[in-house]
Amino acid sequence: MESTARLEAFSDGVFAIAATLLILDVHRADGSVSHGLIHAWPSYTAYAISFLTIGIIWVNHHTVMAQLGRVDRTFMFLNLGLLMVVSFSPYPTRVLAETLRTGSKAAAFSYGATFVLMSIFYAAMWFYAIKGKRLLAHDADPKMVSGITRSFRPGSVMYTTAMLSSFISAYLAVALYGAIALVYVAESSLFGRD
Amino acid sequence: MESTARLEAFSDGVFAIAATLLILDVHRADGSVSHGLIHAWPSYTAYAISFLTIGIIWVNHHTVMAQLGRVDRTFMFLNLGLLMVVSFSPYPTRVLAETLRTGSKAAAFSYGATFVLMSIFYAAMWFYAIKGKRLLAHDADPKMVSGITRSFRPGSVMYTTAMLSSFISAYLAVALYGAIALVYVAESSLFGRD
Amino acid sequence: MESTARLEAFSDGVFAIAATLLILDVHRADGSVSHGLIHAWPSYTAYAISFLTIGIIWVNHHTVMAQLGRVDRTFMFLNLGLLMVVSFSPYPTRVLAETLRTGSKAAAFSYGATFVLMSIFYAAMWFYAIKGKRLLAHDADPKMVSGITRSFRPGSVMYTTAMLSSFISAYLAVALYGAIALVYVAESSLFGRD
Amino acid sequence: MESTARLEAFSDGVFAIAATLLILDVHRADGSVSHGLIHAWPSYTAYAISFLTIGIIWVNHHTVMAQLGRVDRTFMFLNLGLLMVVSFSPYPTRVLAETLRTGSKAAAFSYGATFVLMSIFYAAMWFYAIKGKRLLAHDADPKMVSGITRSFRPGSVMYTTAMLSSFISAYLAVALYGAIALVYVAESSLFGRD
Repeated sequence: MESTARLEAFSDGVFAIAATLLILDVHRADGSVSHGLIHAWPSYTAYAISFLTIGIIWVNHHTVMAQLGRVDRTFMFLNLGLLMVVSFSPYPTRVLAETLRTGSKAAAFSYGATFVLMSIFYAAMWFYAIKGKRLLAHDADPKMVSGITRSFRPGSVMYTTAMLSSFISAYLAVALYGAIALVYVAESSLFGRD
Repeated sequence: MESTARLEAFSDGVFAIAATLLILDVHRADGSVSHGLIHAWPSYTAYAISFLTIGIIWVNHHTVMAQLGRVDRTFMFLNLGLLMVVSFSPYPTRVLAETLRTGSKAAAFSYGATFVLMSIFYAAMWFYAIKGKRLLAHDADPKMVSGITRSFRPGSVMYTTAMLSSFISAYLAVALYGAIALVYVAESSLFGRD
Repeated sequence: MESTARLEAFSDGVFAIAATLLILDVHRADGSVSHGLIHAWPSYTAYAISFLTIGIIWVNHHTVMAQLGRVDRTFMFLNLGLLMVVSFSPYPTRVLAETLRTGSKAAAFSYGATFVLMSIFYAAMWFYAIKGKRLLAHDADPKMVSGITRSFRPGSVMYTTAMLSSFISAYLAVALYGAIALVYVAESSLFGRD
Repeated sequence: MESTARLEAFSDGVFAIAATLLILDVHRADGSVSHGLIHAWPSYTAYAISFLTIGIIWVNHHTVMAQLGRVDRTFMFLNLGLLMVVSFSPYPTRVLAETLRTGSKAAAFSYGATFVLMSIFYAAMWFYAIKGKRLLAHDADPKMVSGITRSFRPGSVMYTTAMLSSFISAYLAVALYGAIALVYVAESSLFGRD
């Protein structure tokens, strides 16, 4: 059993770097400078949605870890799986940005699939940690714990729906990805209270 | 309510990475090695101004957080908005560096707009935190708090003026961006005392 | 003599960044978007193996540091050597990804050599630290210490075997690199108990 | 007056990122995979020297900060200047790697000039901090403090000599940069004792 401090530090590092690396794939469109800056909107859209989504996962990771008193090696590897997907996310973001103008369904699907995979690892971590109160802190707040548990169902339903909507239209899917991010930001009381 | 430690760690990570990524967009100009090193001056200028500006925001973030005793989810998302703009800043920096030789007004404007947006998020964080002493630490220093509050007006006036001056000349705007950075470095007593 | 805190923070930073930078070298294959996403599998394979391997080394670094009470300058430089190889690893990973389709033995060998070198620095750190209990914490767990010591032999044998197998076939070597990573993840009780 | 914790965290981040970003500029040479891996030696040389040099500065930053009890805004901006040069260093490293085969004196000079500038900021930080014991910790070790002070002269003489030797030969200068790094690693008792 180990304390949670270094796991949080390493995770924060990966979250921060993955979020910040996204900008390397934002490029001006061709043409004059002002035209190129404006017509790069698909890159800005993909950047903003991915940054917000990684940020939300970071905020929620924060909320989850505050309830845990310790970690074990299994938890560390589940967390590593989550981080592997988080740090993978700049790639589908880049593909989405490059193809959004032509509305590629494959790009929109793979983008959503990345976030669905993230939520699977995230749920696995949580349910592993709370099973038999395995890793819960002695002073974990039962209301918060059940609030987090309840929040997984709507989260995975929303992401899966958005991912599948890419078979209808890439733009619909991207609009839904953005809407989910905004829902999480707006609904800051999703996990109970602050 | 959560303590400020992980928010500071994550923010420090984003500040550090955004500042350091700026170098990836510095390239030699064409020609011989010595010629190429010297004629890359627009890249060096844009790099130095952006690095210093991010560094100043980091120093001030530090000063602000020292007065706060806790954070809530709303504050975390405002901070996330600030970080989204900070980690976006290498992009307008790169565009400015690429176009400074031709004096593109669009590039100089978008560069300034990024820093104005940063100062808006920064002010929103601060005024949210101090409203009704919502997040202030019990031992916050009233002189420091009012000093920080007073400093927002000159900061936003300076950045907005510099941004708008890009309609007259890109070089004027860039000179003002650099001058603002130097003012902040020189005037290290801006927030009261050390 | 210094405490271990900053060494851990700096190491965590390098591990996190090296793992996250790997994604910059993942690119779509040519052709349609869906074809390009699917046929980039060599990049995904190399990314996943490298990310997992860096993650495992991070987990083990964590386990090792938990037994140490202090560090000295020699230990810091051995750790620096380890980090130099860790942050070098995105390069052989990229070369492997670019050449996996043609089964380049040179790429598979250099990839394995990087991980063998990592394990040499890692062993050097450990045996330096425990010689005469030089850097061990007063409350180090003797069972854990001998468990870590015993684990170095199978680790280096496995990596060396995998590296040498690249002379037979690049695919065999890559399969072994992946298998070793999975063994470490599965065998989470390798260092004794949690 | 502020504590040193966040300054160390931010600095560690910049050191770690700058060191790790160096690998992005290491590329295979043209030709077959094995030929390309071997003939990329100028990149490996530049990478290793820069990584070690940044690592040494990090170790010494560590040693210096251990003697300080607090920081002020002037110190933070001097530290920011140091970090600006540290995070600039991947650029001259890349230029050196690209031109080492042709022995460009301009590249070798600019590489050395970057490290001389680093040592100037580093000395400025230290002498500002100890002037009138301004920022020294109450329990600072006088022997260590005078050891650090004495070490600045040989350091700056060595780097300046190496930089100027680039006017004779780029290879001589690079050999000296490497030798200085090895001297620092070997002479780990440079600042007194551990």
